[in-house]
Amino acid sequence: MTAIKELSRSRVHSGQQIRLQHQSEVLNCEMTFGLFLPPQAETGPVPVLYWLSGLTCTDENFALKAGAQRMAAQLGLAIVCPDTSPRGTDLPGEHENWDFGSGAGFYVNATHAPWSDHYHMYDYVKQELPALIETEFPVTDQRSVSGHSMGGHGALMCALKDPDRYQSASAFAPICHPSETSWGVKAFSHYLGDDRNEWRDWDATQLVCTVEKQLPILIDQGLEDEYLGEELKPGSLEQACICTHHPLEVRMQHGYGHGYYFVTSFIDDHLRYHAKALGLLG
Amino acid sequence: MTAIKELSRSRVHSGQQIRLQHQSEVLNCEMTFGLFLPPQAETGPVPVLYWLSGLTCTDENFALKAGAQRMAAQLGLAIVCPDTSPRGTDLPGEHENWDFGSGAGFYVNATHAPWSDHYHMYDYVKQELPALIETEFPVTDQRSVSGHSMGGHGALMCALKDPDRYQSASAFAPICHPSETSWGVKAFSHYLGDDRNEWRDWDATQLVCTVEKQLPILIDQGLEDEYLGEELKPGSLEQACICTHHPLEVRMQHGYGHGYYFVTSFIDDHLRYHAKALGLLG
Repeated sequence: MTAIKELSRSRVHSGQQIRLQHQSEVLNCEMTFGLFLPPQAETGPVPVLYWLSGLTCTDENFALKAGAQRMAAQLGLAIVCPDTSPRGTDLPGEHENWDFGSGAGFYVNATHAPWSDHYHMYDYVKQELPALIETEFPVTDQRSVSGHSMGGHGALMCALKDPDRYQSASAFAPICHPSETSWGVKAFSHYLGDDRNEWRDWDATQLVCTVEKQLPILIDQGLEDEYLGEELKPGSLEQACICTHHPLEVRMQHGYGHGYYFVTSFIDDHLRYHAKALGLLG
Repeated sequence: MTAIKELSRSRVHSGQQIRLQHQSEVLNCEMTFGLFLPPQAETGPVPVLYWLSGLTCTDENFALKAGAQRMAAQLGLAIVCPDTSPRGTDLPGEHENWDFGSGAGFYVNATHAPWSDHYHMYDYVKQELPALIETEFPVTDQRSVSGHSMGGHGALMCALKDPDRYQSASAFAPICHPSETSWGVKAFSHYLGDDRNEWRDWDATQLVCTVEKQLPILIDQGLEDEYLGEELKPGSLEQACICTHHPLEVRMQHGYGHGYYFVTSFIDDHLRYHAKALGLLG
């Protein structure tokens, strides 16, 4: 097991917000992530919510802006926040766009050069990081997954591609059908190549049609979200779920936008939703 | 009345977080500030908490990081966040230090050139900004004041210099005795000159000895705060309050540091404290 370096540790709501660094084997670079441990972790292992952030974010945005630690400390829930792409690499064009390359890994396993040397974010957030967390910290192997925007789609993929690994899944303003949006087409054509058949395994709306086990999904979506119609397309996912009888609740929230003011407004609901699935609430 | 320009507006916890810009007469420059209006402001005027931020902050840090809107929306409390110094000016040395000049106005009225042309942050946060808020927005003239670090000292000064203007005052990790700390000496010698007799009217520990009306003060202070001994010195303020029988509660919080993870952990307590003084709680 690779050594983990602790970068900082702050007490918050009687728990610990810790920033950590390690050498990722699947990403082939050094990665930073955030871990919130609730006070209950001092006396026994606790379950974990994996939070996947959106475009341009790092491991820190959620910890600093979502206000999640208060409720997570009440519930006894750890929260892990990975970064949104490999870091410290310098691939051609990697740092030139905010919606592609660094800060925009899209939680897929890239198959095309040069991205395939590093951009395996799906394996990282689903396998390597949980294995590290579950070895090194006082947590159980009970996991839930949530995320925002690009990370909301990451959470949907985790739930749809490997429903046995998670007790529950939710998303805030997720990209729902990346194959049909400009952000998704740009990222997928670089990471996965131009053959759209290869994209089907990384698109939530298409994955819904192929799942073997159905894990219910909770989505909150702001109605004043500027990306709603062009990039997020929750209607496509809803239609696919209707056709396949996949359990999905989409809550349209009047007046809310796309950013962290929206996330913080509903994070407590999601934390309680996951806590119930993880056996923390009666 | 000068025109106010709305820069952005986001729904959060059923209220509105608004970012606004106006031409300040007392600061002689254009200023940006934040305003949270709780949902109750849609049906009638609400009281206001003025939040004064610390060194290097802008009007945005508290709104993004403190997680205060949830409780403020429950209580029916507006929150105004001024910036921490004049902006858009270019005085000699103004932008060279993080603890002096821009981002570090210390909420005093500067008397020495070139600072005296702009750096009248005390008059701005105590008079000009509340007058604007109370004219333009659905708020009452019932005010409370709080703040963090340099802004915690600003809140203490407001409470000690003009207790009739505020219903309640509190602070997080405030600088308590700036005349005896390196941050304070640096700022005061520039803004107020080298005659330390002129500093007495801008130092909370010295102001305690001269107040005409005693407004109780609540302070939270983290015991792992790296600035506690050298820059904050709550013991000096406590001693002065003991000598003068000034009502003061200092809550020392085990394990907590100086930053926003500390503020967010106790902000709900402070909001309820102010709400009670403002007549919002039984």
